[in-house]
Amino acid sequence: MNANTQVHSVYSPGIRALLPLLYAAWSDRVLTPTEVNALRQKAGKLTFLSSDDKKMLLGWSNPMHPPPRQLFKFWEIELREAANLLGDNAKYTLVDLGLKMATEVVEEKSQWDEAVVRGQLAQLEAALKLVNSDTYRAIFPEKTEAIVLAEERSKASFPVAEMRRALDDDYVEIRDKVRTILKDPIFRFRTMRKKSEYRAQVLAWCKLLAEQGLGNLSYPQAYGGKDDMGLYAAVFETLGYHDLSLAIKFGVQFGLFGGSVLWLGTERHHKKYLAKTGTLELAGCFAMTETGHGSNVRGLETTAIYNHDSREFIVNTPNREAGKEYIGNALHGQMATVFAQLIVGGESQGVHAILVPLRGENGNLLPGIEVEDCGYKLGLNGVDNGRIWFHQVRVPKENLLNRFGDLDENGTYQSPIESPSRRFFTMLGTLVGGRVCVPRTGLSAAKSALTIAVKYALKRRQFSGSNVGGQEMLLLDYQSHQRRLMPYLAKAYALDFALTYLTKRYTNRSDKDIREIETLAAGMKAYATWFTTAAIQECREACGGKGYLFENRFADLKADSDIFTTFEGDNTVLMQLVARGVLSEFRKEFHEEGTWAMLRYVGDRVSTAISELNPIAIRNTDKDHLLSPEFQLSAFQFREKQLLYSLSQRIRGLVKGGMNAFDAALTCQTHMLALAEAFIERIVLEQFQISIAHIENDDLRPILNKLSSLYALHSIELHKGWYLEKDYLAGVKTKAIRKLVDELCLDLRQDATALVEAFAIPDELLAAEIIVGPEYILPE
Amino acid sequence: MNANTQVHSVYSPGIRALLPLLYAAWSDRVLTPTEVNALRQKAGKLTFLSSDDKKMLLGWSNPMHPPPRQLFKFWEIELREAANLLGDNAKYTLVDLGLKMATEVVEEKSQWDEAVVRGQLAQLEAALKLVNSDTYRAIFPEKTEAIVLAEERSKASFPVAEMRRALDDDYVEIRDKVRTILKDPIFRFRTMRKKSEYRAQVLAWCKLLAEQGLGNLSYPQAYGGKDDMGLYAAVFETLGYHDLSLAIKFGVQFGLFGGSVLWLGTERHHKKYLAKTGTLELAGCFAMTETGHGSNVRGLETTAIYNHDSREFIVNTPNREAGKEYIGNALHGQMATVFAQLIVGGESQGVHAILVPLRGENGNLLPGIEVEDCGYKLGLNGVDNGRIWFHQVRVPKENLLNRFGDLDENGTYQSPIESPSRRFFTMLGTLVGGRVCVPRTGLSAAKSALTIAVKYALKRRQFSGSNVGGQEMLLLDYQSHQRRLMPYLAKAYALDFALTYLTKRYTNRSDKDIREIETLAAGMKAYATWFTTAAIQECREACGGKGYLFENRFADLKADSDIFTTFEGDNTVLMQLVARGVLSEFRKEFHEEGTWAMLRYVGDRVSTAISELNPIAIRNTDKDHLLSPEFQLSAFQFREKQLLYSLSQRIRGLVKGGMNAFDAALTCQTHMLALAEAFIERIVLEQFQISIAHIENDDLRPILNKLSSLYALHSIELHKGWYLEKDYLAGVKTKAIRKLVDELCLDLRQDATALVEAFAIPDELLAAEIIVGPEYILPE
Repeated sequence: MNANTQVHSVYSPGIRALLPLLYAAWSDRVLTPTEVNALRQKAGKLTFLSSDDKKMLLGWSNPMHPPPRQLFKFWEIELREAANLLGDNAKYTLVDLGLKMATEVVEEKSQWDEAVVRGQLAQLEAALKLVNSDTYRAIFPEKTEAIVLAEERSKASFPVAEMRRALDDDYVEIRDKVRTILKDPIFRFRTMRKKSEYRAQVLAWCKLLAEQGLGNLSYPQAYGGKDDMGLYAAVFETLGYHDLSLAIKFGVQFGLFGGSVLWLGTERHHKKYLAKTGTLELAGCFAMTETGHGSNVRGLETTAIYNHDSREFIVNTPNREAGKEYIGNALHGQMATVFAQLIVGGESQGVHAILVPLRGENGNLLPGIEVEDCGYKLGLNGVDNGRIWFHQVRVPKENLLNRFGDLDENGTYQSPIESPSRRFFTMLGTLVGGRVCVPRTGLSAAKSALTIAVKYALKRRQFSGSNVGGQEMLLLDYQSHQRRLMPYLAKAYALDFALTYLTKRYTNRSDKDIREIETLAAGMKAYATWFTTAAIQECREACGGKGYLFENRFADLKADSDIFTTFEGDNTVLMQLVARGVLSEFRKEFHEEGTWAMLRYVGDRVSTAISELNPIAIRNTDKDHLLSPEFQLSAFQFREKQLLYSLSQRIRGLVKGGMNAFDAALTCQTHMLALAEAFIERIVLEQFQISIAHIENDDLRPILNKLSSLYALHSIELHKGWYLEKDYLAGVKTKAIRKLVDELCLDLRQDATALVEAFAIPDELLAAEIIVGPEYILPE
Repeated sequence: MNANTQVHSVYSPGIRALLPLLYAAWSDRVLTPTEVNALRQKAGKLTFLSSDDKKMLLGWSNPMHPPPRQLFKFWEIELREAANLLGDNAKYTLVDLGLKMATEVVEEKSQWDEAVVRGQLAQLEAALKLVNSDTYRAIFPEKTEAIVLAEERSKASFPVAEMRRALDDDYVEIRDKVRTILKDPIFRFRTMRKKSEYRAQVLAWCKLLAEQGLGNLSYPQAYGGKDDMGLYAAVFETLGYHDLSLAIKFGVQFGLFGGSVLWLGTERHHKKYLAKTGTLELAGCFAMTETGHGSNVRGLETTAIYNHDSREFIVNTPNREAGKEYIGNALHGQMATVFAQLIVGGESQGVHAILVPLRGENGNLLPGIEVEDCGYKLGLNGVDNGRIWFHQVRVPKENLLNRFGDLDENGTYQSPIESPSRRFFTMLGTLVGGRVCVPRTGLSAAKSALTIAVKYALKRRQFSGSNVGGQEMLLLDYQSHQRRLMPYLAKAYALDFALTYLTKRYTNRSDKDIREIETLAAGMKAYATWFTTAAIQECREACGGKGYLFENRFADLKADSDIFTTFEGDNTVLMQLVARGVLSEFRKEFHEEGTWAMLRYVGDRVSTAISELNPIAIRNTDKDHLLSPEFQLSAFQFREKQLLYSLSQRIRGLVKGGMNAFDAALTCQTHMLALAEAFIERIVLEQFQISIAHIENDDLRPILNKLSSLYALHSIELHKGWYLEKDYLAGVKTKAIRKLVDELCLDLRQDATALVEAFAIPDELLAAEIIVGPEYILPE
């Protein structure tokens, strides 16, 4: 701070001494007769006023001429400034404040008798009979942030700690452990602009997590793990509250690389590598994607040619575009799981995974390995993504991850799965864990953003309400702001329960339902990560300029999570997979049960038509009806079924007309995407409703029902065009739904603080300066 | 590249020599009798095959057993690898290719007689009678990127150069000048992670632009300028193709700071500062926003108290939250235009602007000035945003920017505008130029993103179409991909013309229509910058992992433009301003013309009801009707009018019921936002249609009509729920519109390359590695 802070004032000390009383008298924009008399009669007797002062005071004592708005604003500024100097204690009186204001500008202390002034001011205060206006806070009935926060917390309609437990589900302990570890000062966020520095930090953090036994939780106990994919998923999700580069690096090492060894390898690989992978003694890459082929994995061009003479594979990149790209750990990794076309005796066996050492003991690249840094990215700059090319690299036979395909003594290929296509999908299916975990971590990022935006909206004020001179309005008291944030908050809850469902299905999977789970995982990954991108964007904008500053976390939350919609499968491609899955399930059912199933399905449709599409139901705007889980779910089901049926008919028609299945699906691409979304939304709502029905703590049910209703009705509102087209809802009903969404947003606003606090994100991890102060992010 | 690149093959040289012919024979998945005979009869006579080789060849000559898909894929990989080695010349024959493949793996050259092999291969080729398969390209009918690009260009249905001229409008010359300057290697993009380095570079660039005479174009000629705001706007927009930090820094210096001196100051300020500002000899800040008050400018708390004795202002920040925040040029600026509550003789005159020197000759901060760096931000890290506090800073009287308020000889405040409220809005109104320019620069960023995404979608292939073994499909040939990009492309065109209209209205403004232009500018700014954010996001995702790499520009485009929705007025707040403006215009009309206007309006509604809401019109799915500008515009007008009328009625009802106007507006906030959007969309469509009608070159009209239709119908599709609710469209019609949007997307795909090339963004500025190669961004 610079010098020259001598306060300059347009007013004499005397006037300044009077300002708090004057402001209080005028604060209701009316000067009552008592107030007029008090000012006029006492003014002449105030010994500390000059004659000019007295004239000024009289000018401001005319009930016909209240001080202009701008002047009043100025008094307010001056009073607040002095009040600031008195500190945050709001107990001092208006007289105290007046004295403080005066003494600040008194030039000759000898001519200013504070005791006299205090006495006369007290008399005037008494004469003014200011109701309840004896303290500073009485004229500025301002709530401090601490008071507002306490009030907001007290409004909670449910027990926050119980909600937190419900969200943490079966993994309270491990999540708390991760929270505790990440709160350690060593994990404090730092502003790291250089990727070299950032990557080194993330690697070091990752090692610390491994040291804490968090890396190998999903591996068998024999290799130091706990054989529990659920634990791993919970850890990965909780890491999402911290730096996402760390979460992704962690996921690449322990989930992707380790997972490929675990699920595609056999005991010889487990023994040799899993323990070392879990401790990060062995850093590994998951080298699947090629520059030329990302979504189309079967189109990969890297070859691994088996040479029986030397019992080796020769791994080779046949052209530049066939180089592996975006590979995490590429700069640190000692080994890579490389996906390549396996060639044995001149025959191709399709894509297989082979462990290829990248670097020697000294950290130098091995012969034939070429690595290039992917450079800076939009985000995740703490992860060392790179490109890898293989130039005729020789790898021993036993490096083939041979669970689904191997070479016998004679160099002949053997596989437990005969069909190359089924073999390929079975292999990929074992890796679906990534798609189960990624949306959970993305959801954590969205929860951080929502926590920051909601808490900021309950601190930040802008524009006065109808009460002039009163405190400005909190952002979250604006309807538009509620509309921006509350539907996302509701959806975050819906997704939380739905993703827990997905994880449980995955951890309890069997061969029988793995395809269904893959469809589910693909869809949930796409749906949830798109949510993350949209939610964080809305939260950033809702925080205005503050949201743009690095110190408030959105910069990283947005940039780091942006790629979630692309990696582990491009969302648009995944949604087409989902539609194919749903369609083939439908056809299978149809096929298995013959025409009966078809008839039954059509029968269902007819009964739907009778029960739901009757003229009364489609116009039913009764609140109980709209809020009922039954109505909401049946609306979701109708959308899914109708899209499924119409798509199926369309494709059938095209194929009958001579088009092949591939082209028919292409022709109906937007229809397929719509079906996939409807399918996933139905699952999310259904699982949210089931979870609510089964929740142990009854106190949580009402709030969860509101969240579920908001999620459901907001989605119906977004799709109201479709529902109206199908005559499933009439205009009166969609209008009623819109109003009900407004009402639910307003209603949930009361619980907003509690709802984000139930996410239980520690201040150290939230780290947004606007919410928790500046101490949690180390500047560069 | 590492060593050990000796090619290893599973096949003998002989088999490799045959592979191209084998592949060609099988490429249609059928081995015809002629082909079978050729292989069986010739195979035994090929002297360069071993007996094992011959056996293998016979195994592959069985028409009952085509090579498995995976094996065929492997052959393809091997053939392509060899073809790569032969270079890009596609003229060589299959025999050439076979020889190349063979010689690569021949170990003992002495036993390999190339002439003999060639002769025998040629015989076999002749016997196989491969139709059109004499060259490598015949079996891999692959189009190189150059060929695809040439083809795409040739598909253009309109003259690209003419379109470019139409977009450049009246400012072809200056835009080309800026393009030429920015192509200079000195402006080459660099990866600058450290803000100190980045800011220094941007400052240096800015000085170079000033040196080229680009800084002062809007200033009077007396001060080196051209007195042409249109020129300035064109420059600012064109800068949007380059680094947005540079554009914003440029805008802060010449637009905001210079503009405040120009529009709020008088001749004494112009004389003293404008020339120096235009050359950047004087770097200045525009210090309006405070931490506590951004949107609510009237609530600013910084005070400027006039002291008549010393003829000075004392500028003071009364509390920490009243510090100026996000101020561009804060770290470089020598002076700031500070917005403060002006206090004269104990009276407040409201917010005024005062020039406050920040730094002395030596660059050190002056007494009483406190500056803090805002630190890193989500983007725009080349701009030095900071916080500024003033501690009783003394400034001479003549520093008041006194166009709308001044102090006379006696120290008495004088203003040509008596009403403090009107004065305030008049002052702010002069600064509306920022809102005219910002959306144009944002649009440039969106155009860059669209250019990259569209061009990538015409290079990138993924998944084979129905023709197995053929080239994979271009992304833009997928319906879903067209649906992602084409509506944004159409909207970019619509906005371009609408923003040109806005600029012309602004540069030709009069006192009479300034309020209307302010409403327009506020709305266009919000609408266009939201478009920018959404378009860039979609483009990033449409480019997948490549879109995430820094080298492909999206990182900066996204991050830098993200704040456009917040600065120069928060978009949500602006849209409420728009609604207020529209409402008050409506009320004024009603008031001026008495009840007649009301009746007329209602009459309009009724005639609308008759002409548009008749059961035939609402079900009219005729293509000519849907594509007609009249239908489209009347649908937009109906939405605007209906929302305006219903909102007006609602507010009137609330106010009649005793609510004050502020609260009534708050209650209808989402309704107001809907009206604002409908108003702006109507303007955009209307102006786009008018521009098309008046365009000089007839060859441009058809394509522009398509773009206009896509813009209009896509918007109607998005709002179809509303239209269906209002019975303006029936379900059959909204479905027809959806299909027509699909058709237009497909139709416009043919012109996609031409449409983005008409934006005329030089490769040097586009700079995305995936489109123009690596040379345009210097690595760190």
